[in-house]
Amino acid sequence: ARSYNITLLPGDGIGPEVVAVAKDVLSTAGSKEGVELRFQEMLMGGAALDAVGVPLPDETLAAARASDAILLGAIGGYKWDNNEKHLKPETGLLNIRAGLGVFANLRPATVLPQLVDASTLKKEVAEGVDIMVVRELTGGIYFGKPRGFGTNDKGEETGFNTEIYTVSEIDRIARVAFEVARKRGGKLCSVDKANVLEASMLWRKRVTAIASEFPDVELSHMYVDNAAMQLIRNPKQFDTIVTNNIFGDILSDEASMITGSIGMLPSASVGESGPGLFEPIHGSAPDIAGQDKANPLATILSAAMLLRYALGVENAAKRIEAAVTETLDNGFRTGDIYSPGMTLVGCKRMGEEVLKAL
Amino acid sequence: ARSYNITLLPGDGIGPEVVAVAKDVLSTAGSKEGVELRFQEMLMGGAALDAVGVPLPDETLAAARASDAILLGAIGGYKWDNNEKHLKPETGLLNIRAGLGVFANLRPATVLPQLVDASTLKKEVAEGVDIMVVRELTGGIYFGKPRGFGTNDKGEETGFNTEIYTVSEIDRIARVAFEVARKRGGKLCSVDKANVLEASMLWRKRVTAIASEFPDVELSHMYVDNAAMQLIRNPKQFDTIVTNNIFGDILSDEASMITGSIGMLPSASVGESGPGLFEPIHGSAPDIAGQDKANPLATILSAAMLLRYALGVENAAKRIEAAVTETLDNGFRTGDIYSPGMTLVGCKRMGEEVLKAL
Ligand SMILES: CC(C)[C@H](C(=O)O)[C@@H](O)C(=O)O
Ligand SMILES: CC(C)[C@H](C(=O)O)[C@@H](O)C(=O)O
Repeated sequence: ARSYNITLLPGDGIGPEVVAVAKDVLSTAGSKEGVELRFQEMLMGGAALDAVGVPLPDETLAAARASDAILLGAIGGYKWDNNEKHLKPETGLLNIRAGLGVFANLRPATVLPQLVDASTLKKEVAEGVDIMVVRELTGGIYFGKPRGFGTNDKGEETGFNTEIYTVSEIDRIARVAFEVARKRGGKLCSVDKANVLEASMLWRKRVTAIASEFPDVELSHMYVDNAAMQLIRNPKQFDTIVTNNIFGDILSDEASMITGSIGMLPSASVGESGPGLFEPIHGSAPDIAGQDKANPLATILSAAMLLRYALGVENAAKRIEAAVTETLDNGFRTGDIYSPGMTLVGCKRMGEEVLKAL
Repeated sequence: ARSYNITLLPGDGIGPEVVAVAKDVLSTAGSKEGVELRFQEMLMGGAALDAVGVPLPDETLAAARASDAILLGAIGGYKWDNNEKHLKPETGLLNIRAGLGVFANLRPATVLPQLVDASTLKKEVAEGVDIMVVRELTGGIYFGKPRGFGTNDKGEETGFNTEIYTVSEIDRIARVAFEVARKRGGKLCSVDKANVLEASMLWRKRVTAIASEFPDVELSHMYVDNAAMQLIRNPKQFDTIVTNNIFGDILSDEASMITGSIGMLPSASVGESGPGLFEPIHGSAPDIAGQDKANPLATILSAAMLLRYALGVENAAKRIEAAVTETLDNGFRTGDIYSPGMTLVGCKRMGEEVLKAL
C-alpha cells in the first residue's frame, strides 16, 4: 500500500477542532483507496508562541518540508494581536508559505445549490457562481524589501513596504493560472492596477506574454477596483482570476463572502515541487473556539484538495466531496450555514455524518 | 451677491454630457440662494492628451488652483489604455489631486429607498445602508518612491512601488475622518493590513492616537480582507470608514456597488486649504458616450457636495438633493437604474426634470 506522511498544524481558535475532524475523514477516505496516511502534529501560530515563544518553530518547518503534504487549521487570535511583528501568529503563516515556496494559492469560491440562500446576494445573482482565485502567495508587498519604519527628510517617522515583482515570479504564477483556467471554463481574468502601479504594468505585460503559450484560454484584464465591483454586480462573469498577493487577499475573501458560506471553502497552496499547504480560508474564530460550534467542512474539503493535488489520489478526493454533498443533502448544518428546517449540528457531529456518508 | 469661480473639467467619455447637465443645476441652485457662479471649462484627461499632448496641461492646474472649486466629469478610455504612464489620462487625475493637495476623498455609499432594488444584495441587507468612505488620496503606494522598473541581483527585470505613510499624513486624514464620523453616526472603522504591513502598523498606531482627540467617536479597526467580506455580509455595520489610498480605491468601489446605483454616487476631495475637487465616482463609460444615455445624477450630487463643502452654501446643496429625490419619486430613471413601471429618460431629460424640481 502506498503510504504518505501528513503534517497537521492545528493552530489556534477553532483550528484544533476542525483539524481533528478532518484528520479522521482524510484517513478514512485514504484507506478506502488503499492509501495509508501517517500524521504528525506540530506547533504553529499562537499555540507555538505560547509553548515555545516563536510562531513557526524550526522543527515545524523541517517536519513540514519532510512530509508529503500539510493540513493547517487556522492561526491567530486577539491575545496576540498586539505582539510585535516577529511574534505575531501571522508571521508564522507567512514564514511557512515562504519556507515551503508555495507561491500559488488556489481559492475556489463556489455557491453550492444547497446553500445558495446563505449568500447575501440575490438568488439569481449568486446561484451557479463558481470562481477560482489564483493568488500569488510568496511575493509582492507581503515580502518586498525594503520594509520597516524610518525617518523622512523632514525628520518625520514613516512606515513603508515595497510592492515588487520579478518577471519569473509573474511568469510562474501566470502559468499555474492558465493551467487551472484550461481545466475549468477556459477563461482567465488577470486583475491589477496597471493604470497606476509599475509593478502592475510589468504584471500585465508578462501575463499577456505567457498567454501565447495557452491559445485555448481566453485572457482578459481588469483593474482591481473594478474587479471588486464586478464580483458583486455579476460574479458569474468570472471563471478563473489571477492576481497578486495583496489584491488576491482582498478579492478572494470578497469572492468567498459572495458564496455566503465561508465555513465551506478550502484552499490549496502549491509550489514548483515539494509539499503543498492545505487550509480552510476561514480564520481562527476565537469567539466560538472550544464550543464544538465550528463548521469543519472547509477543512474537510481542504483535505480533499490535499488528496487531489498533493497525493494524486483523485478518487479519495471525490469520495470526500461526494460525502460532503450527501451530508448537506441529508440536511445537516452547523450554525454558520443553518436555515430553518435543517438539522443543527456541532463540529464533531458534522464530522461523524461525513464519515457515515463516506 | 457672493460670486465664485468654478473650474469645469468635463474630461472623457460621458464626462462632457454629465458635466453640462450638472452645470445648469449648479448654477440654478446657486442663484436661488443669491450666489453667482462663473464657470471656466478646461482640458483634462484623454481630451487634453488629444488636444495638447499631456493629460493635465499647466493652464488647467493653474486655473483649477485659482478657482473656488472644481467639478470633474470622468477621464480615461480604451483609446489611451496602452499609453505610457506619463501619457495616461489617469496620470492627469493623480497629478491634479497631488497638485491641489486634496488628501481627503469622501465617498458616500448610500442606498436610496427608491433604488433599493437596484442592488444585487438582498433587500433586507441593502436597505438603509449609509456608509461614508474617507480615503487618503495623495499618499501611499500611488505616490510613494522609489517606483519604476529595475533589475534585481539575478539580473531579472522587476516592477516596483513603495507603500509609505508619514505620521503627519496619517494624522491629518484621521482627523478629517473623525470629524466626518462625529457629524454622522459617531462610529469610525479604520481599515488596514497591520498584521502584515509596517505602513499599516504605523497607520493603526496613529489613528489610535488621534482617537483621544475625539472621545465622542467610537473607533474600531479591521483588516482589509475582512472589510471586503463584511461589506457584503452586513454593510449596515459600517458608518464611517477611513483607509489608505489603495485600500480606499478598492473598498469605496465595492461599497458603491453594494448600493447598486453607482450612477448616483458623488465624491468630494478636499485638502487643508485651497479648492476642492468634486466628481462622480463612476468612470467615463466610453461604450455609452455621446448617446445621451448617461446618468447625470452622480455629477449633480457632486455639485451639491461642492456647494456644501467648498462654498458653504448648505441651502443650495439641500435644494439639489431634494430635487434629485423628487425626480426619483416622480419615477424618472436613466437606463442604469431603470426598473419596470418607471419612466426611462436620457441624460439631458433627467437634468431638465431636476431643474423643474428645483
Ligand atoms: C492571516 C493573514 C496573514 C493572511 C494573509 O493576509 O495572507 C490571511 O488573511 C490569508 O488570506 O490567508
Ligand atoms: C482612474 C484611477 C487612477 C482612479 C484611482 O485609482 O484613484 C479611480 O479608480 C478612482 O478611484 O478615482
